[in-house]
Amino acid sequence: MVRLWVTDDLAGGGRAALTPDQAHYLATVMRLRAGDEILAFNGRDGEWRARLADAGKRGGALEILTRTREQAEGADLALAVALVKRPRLETIVEKAAELGARAVPLVITERTNPGHANLARLQAIAVEASEQTGRLDVPQVAAPERLADLLSNWPSERRLMFCDEAGEAPPALAALSAGGEPGGAWTILIGPEGGFSPAERAQIRKLPAAVPVSLGPRILRADTAAIGALTLWQAALGDLGGA
Amino acid sequence: MVRLWVTDDLAGGGRAALTPDQAHYLATVMRLRAGDEILAFNGRDGEWRARLADAGKRGGALEILTRTREQAEGADLALAVALVKRPRLETIVEKAAELGARAVPLVITERTNPGHANLARLQAIAVEASEQTGRLDVPQVAAPERLADLLSNWPSERRLMFCDEAGEAPPALAALSAGGEPGGAWTILIGPEGGFSPAERAQIRKLPAAVPVSLGPRILRADTAAIGALTLWQAALGDLGGA
Repeated sequence: MVRLWVTDDLAGGGRAALTPDQAHYLATVMRLRAGDEILAFNGRDGEWRARLADAGKRGGALEILTRTREQAEGADLALAVALVKRPRLETIVEKAAELGARAVPLVITERTNPGHANLARLQAIAVEASEQTGRLDVPQVAAPERLADLLSNWPSERRLMFCDEAGEAPPALAALSAGGEPGGAWTILIGPEGGFSPAERAQIRKLPAAVPVSLGPRILRADTAAIGALTLWQAALGDLGGA
Repeated sequence: MVRLWVTDDLAGGGRAALTPDQAHYLATVMRLRAGDEILAFNGRDGEWRARLADAGKRGGALEILTRTREQAEGADLALAVALVKRPRLETIVEKAAELGARAVPLVITERTNPGHANLARLQAIAVEASEQTGRLDVPQVAAPERLADLLSNWPSERRLMFCDEAGEAPPALAALSAGGEPGGAWTILIGPEGGFSPAERAQIRKLPAAVPVSLGPRILRADTAAIGALTLWQAALGDLGGA
């Protein structure tokens, strides 16, 4: 069944507005008609069966029926990723949504091209992937910030999984199992294709919250490292668990 | 340093031929000149420092210098993947190379579009990713075969990691740790976007070699499932190890 993320509050008997894009998607792409049912969620009120009330060029509306799932919070997991080239960055945002990250802060590093990130497009990718994957919220893609600023304001209780391809870090699963209890707040940090500079690596490793990990003997592209790190984190501390 | 996969034997003092594409890449894209050094490997003789001897429109040649790494066999791991749409299939082949699969057999399932797979292009992607990731061999992409045929000829000693999104399989890490010793032969099986049919699921699960696993509570696209499964396999039984 089609799932849509909406911004309105969801309650039985109420209505929720559709954007023009959503109305077009339901009526023209999916060929739904008034009375057909979909699922709706907004990140706050759980997931609801909803009936298409109307869909036109200027938007549309859903009638909210009954709740199918209670709202549940996923892990407090962020994926901080250096601004890599657009196709791989889009893949990373899609996979962050599929693998349960709650936020995707973008990071400017020494070896990052200063290019423009299209935040609206990245956020739309996060929404679509969240609709498809069945989760009850949508990760927030956050505007690029310099790595030095991110690190100097680091909250001490938030662990930082540092995927360090240059160093002799322990294997990721072992480091994660030793480094945290399920339930804590974590950020996974993925560098640019050229890696972090030596000064950046030293600055990251100086952070008491940093947990350096190895992702194996091969050189991984940024998207592969991001997906692998998210998977291993969820297996060690999240909902892929059960080692 | 540039790494190239070549087909000729590699031995100190010998030469290895470059294809026209490789000669163009070295001379025009990377702007190397005669005498500049690269690394070369062929899947049999390890990795060698090599000097560009000549590069022209009809190909070129390397002079082979000294061995930098001995040939080493990776795990006997295959990624059998249903024919999904081209962009995601290309991503999967690239990631199979980065994450150490030795073979990528393509599979036709009930819910697979019977579309044509461009094997030459997929193999070229496997070569380029292997050059980039630093491995000493290149995974072989194999022509599409029907799932039923694949299963009816299954070698009994080869374990099958079955990523079963419909069932109540145990978490992947737990199932892999219980299901095998490092060193054995394995195939990871990834279904099409619509999943396997109930008849296919039953047929796979009947196989004594099958190890059903769960990849968590969210619905994953085929490329996410493939990368996650490869990562978890390498973490449990391969060279990302050390749980």
